[in-house]
Amino acid sequence: MNEQRMSTRDGVLRAAERVAAILPPTPLLPVEIDGVRLWAKAEMLQPIGAFKIRGAWHRLFALTAEESARGVVGVSSGNHAQGVAWAARRLGIAATIVMPTDAPQTKIDATRALGAEVVLYDRPGGEDRDEVAARLVAASGATLVHAFADPWVIEGQGSAGIEIETQLGRAPSRIIACCGGGGLTAGLALACPDSAVVPVEPVGWDMVGQALVAGEVVKVGAHPPATICDALQPPATREINLAVLRGRAEPGVTVTDDEVRAAQRFAFARLRLVVEPGGAAALAAALAGKVPLDGDTVVMLTGGNVDPAAYAATIAAK
Amino acid sequence: MNEQRMSTRDGVLRAAERVAAILPPTPLLPVEIDGVRLWAKAEMLQPIGAFKIRGAWHRLFALTAEESARGVVGVSSGNHAQGVAWAARRLGIAATIVMPTDAPQTKIDATRALGAEVVLYDRPGGEDRDEVAARLVAASGATLVHAFADPWVIEGQGSAGIEIETQLGRAPSRIIACCGGGGLTAGLALACPDSAVVPVEPVGWDMVGQALVAGEVVKVGAHPPATICDALQPPATREINLAVLRGRAEPGVTVTDDEVRAAQRFAFARLRLVVEPGGAAALAAALAGKVPLDGDTVVMLTGGNVDPAAYAATIAAK
Repeated sequence: MNEQRMSTRDGVLRAAERVAAILPPTPLLPVEIDGVRLWAKAEMLQPIGAFKIRGAWHRLFALTAEESARGVVGVSSGNHAQGVAWAARRLGIAATIVMPTDAPQTKIDATRALGAEVVLYDRPGGEDRDEVAARLVAASGATLVHAFADPWVIEGQGSAGIEIETQLGRAPSRIIACCGGGGLTAGLALACPDSAVVPVEPVGWDMVGQALVAGEVVKVGAHPPATICDALQPPATREINLAVLRGRAEPGVTVTDDEVRAAQRFAFARLRLVVEPGGAAALAAALAGKVPLDGDTVVMLTGGNVDPAAYAATIAAK
Repeated sequence: MNEQRMSTRDGVLRAAERVAAILPPTPLLPVEIDGVRLWAKAEMLQPIGAFKIRGAWHRLFALTAEESARGVVGVSSGNHAQGVAWAARRLGIAATIVMPTDAPQTKIDATRALGAEVVLYDRPGGEDRDEVAARLVAASGATLVHAFADPWVIEGQGSAGIEIETQLGRAPSRIIACCGGGGLTAGLALACPDSAVVPVEPVGWDMVGQALVAGEVVKVGAHPPATICDALQPPATREINLAVLRGRAEPGVTVTDDEVRAAQRFAFARLRLVVEPGGAAALAAALAGKVPLDGDTVVMLTGGNVDPAAYAATIAAK
């Protein structure tokens, strides 16, 4: 298992070099909230529309020729899927992605368009996506590329933090990050040791926030609330992520669907950027006054792959 | 009148320095159209959501202390208005903007929010906006900052071309530009002497395209067709623009409202960028196969200030 290797800051620096060789830095844009001028990192401007391309590229690039020949299996609600598919196509590796049946159709279609095989599983019904992936791995000898519990993936996501420090010319005071399983948050914590890192999760899906309080991995309840943040619904964080975040991340913050929609509208009107619900969680926390802001604060806008009808309804609402 | 001075390439280079001192370059993003990988310049990511901030900043920065004290008057359907208001606030100059009553409310509100006084005139009814502005100038001694027929404004808009050459590492083969009165197109022609420059205008509002054919300024007809491109409805281009473009610009291209809406949807889904109708005209021409494309082609995405309800309807439509 990949979890046997720990992610490291050196690994993040290597990832940042590999990512910089193939992807231009995403812009760090000024944004004013409540009279404070801070910064937004526009990761939806990645070719796949989300930061997940970073970790996927770093992971697949590190595969041996023998591993590459056996292919990769990813598990994802959509953005990691596209990241793995993009990297796999670029490297000539076969990719199979396990996705929930309720993932946005636009994400399923985009993953297939990138050449990956998609295997659907039933998220609400309770199939364990990791078991589905494990069966595929056992059958093919492929390498599992976990969406967040993987040292290369964590390091790859952390490359965003290296870019931010270069763009800002100093360490941010605080990075506010949309958080699913904790891959990005852990990567940023490694990348920016002098910055506070705040994980923001949907209400009821704060598996990283709860794990930080408990000091150990906490599984989501049997009947978690619905959330529009399809990208931020992990069944739990994992020890490899928690090991980085324990004692390092700030207390977790949760946001409601309405706060997320308000953030999507703000990004539309003020930044002219399309942000998906899960990609707007950090901005939602900032706008709702749930995190202290100063001129060196960075808000991660992590993705923009959103169903057109849902987005139109959000934008048209007051 | 400002028209007595001609715009020059040296002026564009000075403008590029002044703009670079205050505004980071907007990203040049890869985009694939019909299997060709080309480039999109994301000007909606400027602080005011449009390239117009460039020309306004260059113009207002060049005012003497005495001129600054008397204020500025701008004429604009919305984006130039915000550019002048932004520059004026930053420089402590009083700004009055003449805007049409049918400008998007979001643009009028944004202009006022930037501290400018807005004077409305009736575009469909036929009031001459230049006469309204001339009266204000006569009364106050303010400097008129024309939206396109001004040498500093042309040079300022051209700074986008200097950025593009730096980002691409070479001259683009072709720059496809949304075109209203011809300020941006002329500026790009001066900035990039080795690149073809293609003006794209709404059907019936191709005042630059028609002037290039006629060899002289052509006024829009008495009953021009409706267009959703509120930013691209000049009554005519002007000699200062035509003097640069004559013998230099490629033949003009026109686009329909449906082509523009398709381009807005493409930018939403593929680039996760909010583009207003007038800002999507160049992309519309590229997507409709109306301009040859190659790997060194640049498509200007010039603005993203759009009414939320209209945008939602466009995005939700098939």
